[in-house]
Amino acid sequence: MEHKKEVDVSEWYNEVVEAAGLCDKRYPVKGMNIWLPYGWKIMQLIDKKIRKEFDATGHSEVCFPLLIPENEFQKEAEHIKGFSAQVFWVTHAGDNPLDIKLVLRPTSETAMYSMFSIWIRSHADLPLKIYQIVNVFRYETKQTRAFIRVREIHFFEAHTCHADAEGSEGQIKEDIQIMENLGKALALPYILHKRPDWDKFAGAVYSLGADLLAGEKALQIGTIHQYHENFAKAYNILFEDKDGTHRHAHQTTFGLSERLVGAVVGVHGDNSGLILPPEIAPYQVVIVPVPKKEKKEVVEGYAMEIQKLLMDAGIRVHLDLRDLRPGNKYYDWELKGVPLRIEVGERESAGGTVTAVRRDTREKITIAREGLADVVKSLLTKVQADLYERAAKALEANIHWITSIEEGRNRRGILRFNWCGSEDCGMGIEKGLDVSILGIPLNVNARSGRCIVCGKPTEMIADAGRSL
Amino acid sequence: MEHKKEVDVSEWYNEVVEAAGLCDKRYPVKGMNIWLPYGWKIMQLIDKKIRKEFDATGHSEVCFPLLIPENEFQKEAEHIKGFSAQVFWVTHAGDNPLDIKLVLRPTSETAMYSMFSIWIRSHADLPLKIYQIVNVFRYETKQTRAFIRVREIHFFEAHTCHADAEGSEGQIKEDIQIMENLGKALALPYILHKRPDWDKFAGAVYSLGADLLAGEKALQIGTIHQYHENFAKAYNILFEDKDGTHRHAHQTTFGLSERLVGAVVGVHGDNSGLILPPEIAPYQVVIVPVPKKEKKEVVEGYAMEIQKLLMDAGIRVHLDLRDLRPGNKYYDWELKGVPLRIEVGERESAGGTVTAVRRDTREKITIAREGLADVVKSLLTKVQADLYERAAKALEANIHWITSIEEGRNRRGILRFNWCGSEDCGMGIEKGLDVSILGIPLNVNARSGRCIVCGKPTEMIADAGRSL
Repeated sequence: MEHKKEVDVSEWYNEVVEAAGLCDKRYPVKGMNIWLPYGWKIMQLIDKKIRKEFDATGHSEVCFPLLIPENEFQKEAEHIKGFSAQVFWVTHAGDNPLDIKLVLRPTSETAMYSMFSIWIRSHADLPLKIYQIVNVFRYETKQTRAFIRVREIHFFEAHTCHADAEGSEGQIKEDIQIMENLGKALALPYILHKRPDWDKFAGAVYSLGADLLAGEKALQIGTIHQYHENFAKAYNILFEDKDGTHRHAHQTTFGLSERLVGAVVGVHGDNSGLILPPEIAPYQVVIVPVPKKEKKEVVEGYAMEIQKLLMDAGIRVHLDLRDLRPGNKYYDWELKGVPLRIEVGERESAGGTVTAVRRDTREKITIAREGLADVVKSLLTKVQADLYERAAKALEANIHWITSIEEGRNRRGILRFNWCGSEDCGMGIEKGLDVSILGIPLNVNARSGRCIVCGKPTEMIADAGRSL
Repeated sequence: MEHKKEVDVSEWYNEVVEAAGLCDKRYPVKGMNIWLPYGWKIMQLIDKKIRKEFDATGHSEVCFPLLIPENEFQKEAEHIKGFSAQVFWVTHAGDNPLDIKLVLRPTSETAMYSMFSIWIRSHADLPLKIYQIVNVFRYETKQTRAFIRVREIHFFEAHTCHADAEGSEGQIKEDIQIMENLGKALALPYILHKRPDWDKFAGAVYSLGADLLAGEKALQIGTIHQYHENFAKAYNILFEDKDGTHRHAHQTTFGLSERLVGAVVGVHGDNSGLILPPEIAPYQVVIVPVPKKEKKEVVEGYAMEIQKLLMDAGIRVHLDLRDLRPGNKYYDWELKGVPLRIEVGERESAGGTVTAVRRDTREKITIAREGLADVVKSLLTKVQADLYERAAKALEANIHWITSIEEGRNRRGILRFNWCGSEDCGMGIEKGLDVSILGIPLNVNARSGRCIVCGKPTEMIADAGRSL
């Protein structure tokens, strides 16, 4: 690794995603990268966690078409305004112009909701809870960055319909719990913010964003939107209630994306490369035999035994038998962030032990072959918890309370302050400090003070930060 | 079910995919359907089988971008000729025309191969074996049909590069074995055909197609292509060989798609709906309690016990506790093709048994609670094998040897005949009988005879059929 995380997190990030074999950025369309096997495997393990959460809460997985007809796309006014500058248009098929132009979905509200209006007839059809994992397309004009700001996005979207506001508010609560579970699974502590009005999702009544810190830069890893009847009115999603009246459904969405991979890289990685939380590591353990020449067969045989033992216990394990020096192998697997390296040499094979080395702390631990799988499992659990803990402390340590614009100037990380809530003062903060307002942090107690721009007394607290 | 399979297999097919909840065809873009939860689950189970086969043979999963720049798309002459009439073009982003137009991939040769030319440097980089599961887009002009002829296609594609012709021929052999394994997993017997030259894949040296019969109509379910150096020359895929010379790689591809779902529907289904092979059934067993009113709690409690027992044994089982008559539930699950229905009533609960009913044969079997999971497992294995057997016999019975065009006129299914191999005679057969030549069946012994068009003596045999 050429770049240091503490010197320039952006350059370090760009280097590590490539060096660890997560993606190839040389594909000849800007902002569209190739998922390489290792990166794709991490993404699939994350998708599996996501599916588990949403299946367990009664969501069904579907898959809608990519292309949305222009007329469907343009039914909800705010939504179009938000997205029309950044959609890709299909205008021709073969040599012929299409009668109706088609949009590559930037998100699927406008693909799904005219179907919802067919599917939903009565209160018995509610709640409707579906999700899909698909690629979406956005013509980003800002500088692109692998996994974080790309033009083809591996995307998760849940869409729900409810009979009333109470139902859709209940869904938001469920979503917040799901986000928490996912944060744990990926060892990603975050702050949940209610976005300021000017930054809510196009068409939403309000938006929540889960923001974390990668290095000292803010990164949104998940969004939850309350639509209430906004889209239902535009797409005519009506149901017959118990009393015979027809009402519009109340809707919500939950969005996640490949940014989760970017967040794992940015939050946990160090100057030797990735550090993967065990729950989403393609290999949780890598075994590197360190034989003297004359003992090669014995040591490799022992390594295979160890591999089988761990594999049988359901641990994702890889035995590295490449014809390379052990030191080179260590370097590779550190770069790829494998949580636990197991070294076996002559001494280990003779003594019936292994030497385990934690990627996160580099701590060396001797473990007996007897009961190995259980010890490794609890070690992996410990690594997972420690990564979360470490990141949570780093996040906490990087929240800076400021009482004036001046105080924020030399602060990095997350700036926290009293804010009167007006857009004018919000803009004053954003411009004055070259930050974005992340919003009102949920789960943080109100605190009396004065708006750091206009000085008005207020209990409201807001967070701001610079984005990766 | 309104339509009968034996009367009109096409209409029957259209009805069953909708009635069983596999997809919704009302999406407002022609040939682009919505995968509903049940259909999507079947597809995912099939994808899992596919991944298992390709992972086990040393292929790595990747994911390339959807969009291909016009200049990359146009590098291999035959390939463009084959696809240019049926690609969708992205020409604008936001309000602005793009500098370089982008194609929605109809297949990924032209997306991947300029990257291969970067990735591959030396013989040590070979063989390169990758695959991806993505959606591809083809502007079909023929009538569309769910899963079988659509414009957005859920697609599997493996791409390999080898040092020489021997390597790429070895890959074809491996592919043939994989196709065989998948045919078994999906209970889909097929005939492997070497396609006639005029029908090979655009850019291939030769193409193999796996064809089966749905009703009496032919359906291609997989294709294997030998490219040798055709694409490597167009995309400059060169490697330094051991002797220091630079050579072009030899390439192959293997393609599968959502057609596999269509094939499962078409081959196994009957006039009551789907019949799913247990290996890819979302629910392998459905439990329907049949209680008298006063015993409802007892019987449902027993049903839950049975469910747990089967679930713990790793069987995909669903307990249907809906407030419906048992007969309605039977109807639903027959439509959805669940391989085994388990009925539990007062008698079963008292006697410690269950009554199992096979979807394929409707056979009723009483099974004791003791050892139930094992019996159910072997029953599912039997169902799987029987479905394959039944389909293989139906395929066999529908191959008709003909010695003249005249003899083929009133024959359906697959027509088999001697053919001199000329395109003229091939066209004569296709037009004379309104069929497509499927090609030379592999694994069928040559047989001396005369070409049924020109009368020339020949040992070559070919098959033809009408497509679903």
